[in-house]
Amino acid sequence: MPAPIAQTVQTVLRHADAAFDQSRDTLFSLLRIPSVSAQPAHRADCQRAAEWWREQLTGLGFRTDILPTPGHPVVVGHHDGPAGYSGPHVLFYAHYDVQPVDPLELWHSPPFEPQLIDGPHGKRFVARGAVDDKGQSVMFLEALRAWHQAGGGIPARLTVLIEGEEEVGSVNLEPFVAAHKDLLRSDLGLISDTGMWDVDTPAVTTRLRGMTYVEVTLHAANRDLHSGLFGGSALNPINALTRILGELKDANGRIQLAGFYDRVKPVSNAQRAQWDALGFDEAAFLGGIGLSVPAGERGYSALERLWARPTADINGIWGGYIGAGSKTVIAADASAKVSFRLVADQDPAEVFEQFKRFVHDRLPKDARVEFICNSGAPAFEANLDSPWVQAVQTVLRDEYGKEPVLVGSGGSVPVVTSLKHVLGIDTLLMGFGLDDDQIHSPNEKFEQRCFQHGIRSHVRLLAKFAGS
Amino acid sequence: MPAPIAQTVQTVLRHADAAFDQSRDTLFSLLRIPSVSAQPAHRADCQRAAEWWREQLTGLGFRTDILPTPGHPVVVGHHDGPAGYSGPHVLFYAHYDVQPVDPLELWHSPPFEPQLIDGPHGKRFVARGAVDDKGQSVMFLEALRAWHQAGGGIPARLTVLIEGEEEVGSVNLEPFVAAHKDLLRSDLGLISDTGMWDVDTPAVTTRLRGMTYVEVTLHAANRDLHSGLFGGSALNPINALTRILGELKDANGRIQLAGFYDRVKPVSNAQRAQWDALGFDEAAFLGGIGLSVPAGERGYSALERLWARPTADINGIWGGYIGAGSKTVIAADASAKVSFRLVADQDPAEVFEQFKRFVHDRLPKDARVEFICNSGAPAFEANLDSPWVQAVQTVLRDEYGKEPVLVGSGGSVPVVTSLKHVLGIDTLLMGFGLDDDQIHSPNEKFEQRCFQHGIRSHVRLLAKFAGS
Repeated sequence: MPAPIAQTVQTVLRHADAAFDQSRDTLFSLLRIPSVSAQPAHRADCQRAAEWWREQLTGLGFRTDILPTPGHPVVVGHHDGPAGYSGPHVLFYAHYDVQPVDPLELWHSPPFEPQLIDGPHGKRFVARGAVDDKGQSVMFLEALRAWHQAGGGIPARLTVLIEGEEEVGSVNLEPFVAAHKDLLRSDLGLISDTGMWDVDTPAVTTRLRGMTYVEVTLHAANRDLHSGLFGGSALNPINALTRILGELKDANGRIQLAGFYDRVKPVSNAQRAQWDALGFDEAAFLGGIGLSVPAGERGYSALERLWARPTADINGIWGGYIGAGSKTVIAADASAKVSFRLVADQDPAEVFEQFKRFVHDRLPKDARVEFICNSGAPAFEANLDSPWVQAVQTVLRDEYGKEPVLVGSGGSVPVVTSLKHVLGIDTLLMGFGLDDDQIHSPNEKFEQRCFQHGIRSHVRLLAKFAGS
Repeated sequence: MPAPIAQTVQTVLRHADAAFDQSRDTLFSLLRIPSVSAQPAHRADCQRAAEWWREQLTGLGFRTDILPTPGHPVVVGHHDGPAGYSGPHVLFYAHYDVQPVDPLELWHSPPFEPQLIDGPHGKRFVARGAVDDKGQSVMFLEALRAWHQAGGGIPARLTVLIEGEEEVGSVNLEPFVAAHKDLLRSDLGLISDTGMWDVDTPAVTTRLRGMTYVEVTLHAANRDLHSGLFGGSALNPINALTRILGELKDANGRIQLAGFYDRVKPVSNAQRAQWDALGFDEAAFLGGIGLSVPAGERGYSALERLWARPTADINGIWGGYIGAGSKTVIAADASAKVSFRLVADQDPAEVFEQFKRFVHDRLPKDARVEFICNSGAPAFEANLDSPWVQAVQTVLRDEYGKEPVLVGSGGSVPVVTSLKHVLGIDTLLMGFGLDDDQIHSPNEKFEQRCFQHGIRSHVRLLAKFAGS
């Protein structure tokens, strides 16, 4: 007869701690695979990362498949949990792909050779993907392994869904989920790809911003021109593009797309009071990145701007001669990548249309324009009355001995929308990243203690599903 | 006792016509040398081209040297002219180097095997350098030869300066001129590297635009940031750069740098009337490059905008993620290359300062900015009252039986500035190229009749120096 679950949890936690070095080695073996989804040269590496996950899950008794998409493949694993399981069927989502590493010269060590180095909070891991999302997803894997090895088996009914295109907008994920509804049917989503409040304070993320990501190209002359012979007569598409995009915001940081704010809801006074109570130190936040003056919309608190207000950021721009020295050319075209972080009920497709109209309204007569919408996802808001949101709070309170805070995230996790939209399930966001983890940047890192608490918290949360 | 000079001119012109086939052969022998200055593989060919010039000039009685520079060598030849010469000491400048030939597959014949083929204006020469500048410079050489063989000798005091780096920006020329001031001391420059109005209408180029070329970089955060986690709080330097550069011109195309137009002189009514009378077809000019709407300043004619108004063109821009797909990054910095074509008395250094002030005035508090001034040259305007400008007009009127037009060029010829700046001399620009000669492009050509008229015009101009 099995031990009571609460007692088993302590056994499993002790085992996880004892096996911690192997858990780190497991993570490092995944970090060594350069699974950069944006770059075709890394296609085979993405496949390898998928195979890595299949092998791990199969080893824990999951029925696992690698399923194709028009892009990189998806790993789906399934475990029924213990006989007589009556808890929720949980869908754990993660992604095996990582961001490109450029600018490579700013890395202090090769991005795919994980380093264990000392930092102010103890040891840390440095590598592309250290936290986003390899580090965070392996925490869940290692919690499963601890239950498998020391707790009598996987304690809950689980489906694991690991995709390879999160860093390129998860364009194939929603069609995939829709096409495999039966395979993915479940009661509750679980994702570890968010952050803590600080290194000592756990957090549950209850809001995510959505996104519309657009590439815009202006075409002018049918070839590059000599700026001496044509300057003053021929349209310069770079000048035109800066003129258009320079008008994206007014002097108060308010975004100028017509209708853009129509579906933006103000936050409640209660919510605002809770965020104010967090005592967010924007000066320190900005100081950490070498800045001192808040950008963005005037008239909102820092957290409100980050979590509950939309943005318009140019993520890339290029055109003409960008080599050394001077070349007197008027380019034939100019391009930019522009993203809008969305909140509340903003509709990504509608924002795309608003942006197209914004550009068309300002387009010089001789220019042609092309748009590519790379991705779109609406914002997410959790139901704070859900027992599972409360279970996550309990888990974190038990693990840290401290009340977790309910936070928002300025980022987007498009899959949360797909799970709601296609499968009709809500998602729990329990994550262990820190603001200074440098995700998407050179020298991405993950604190070892966050990784270890993360494994332990997942051990505890699995017990909650099992009824402790 | 020598014949009167006016009579001698007719003798020399007849001789030049009789010897025309040899003149063409002489040009073709130079065209066969692939003296591409930009490509290290052609270094020895550049040396051969210099030696070709030394041999030609020495054969005509010039004291000639090949002098080194940090790049390709310079040929300097000197002839005292006839005893008792009292005209101007003339410095003839040309360049022996040519542009690279790529894309090679678009050439209809090998670029360094000159072809004599039929075209709508009679025979034409096709080869890299056919017009720019081998064809144009050999016209002068053949005029000298005609005087040498049939006119009793070289009729003027001449210094000939042939460089090998015009197509790579003449970077070593001004230092060379400064280091050899005594050797190059002269009264008047002469260059044949410009164009006619059309195949029947000769032209004197009396204006060249100057230039200030600046690279500007905006720095914001100390690293690339995740646009979800920082968007709405952190300054985006690409947004800031587009906002600043988007204000370079107002809706009428007027450049917004404070004081920018202070030294821009309006053209005279007479000059404007002459340009209007040329009947320039801007629709056809723009149609050739796939455009239909004139850009640039409102309220000026096409030729005035191209020849007598300054410009502000962004020649290159870059920042953030410019690869395939999407990356949600807020870049640490953003850069652009911006050039201003200058006219009249605009001072390149002053315009650089005006641009710096323009950027600083619009700079967000948290941004740092860096500037690099790549190059600067003032505009050139010939003194229309100069007897030598008038002599060129007379020469062309006599040769073509038609009034030559006074034209501008939107481009820059840096050596004109160096000759003024270092030697204190003005330069005559009498050229015989046509707009469709495809300089710098595949299948560069030169009309045989332009070449022949060019030899004859130089024969006549040499007589003017000698006092006819």
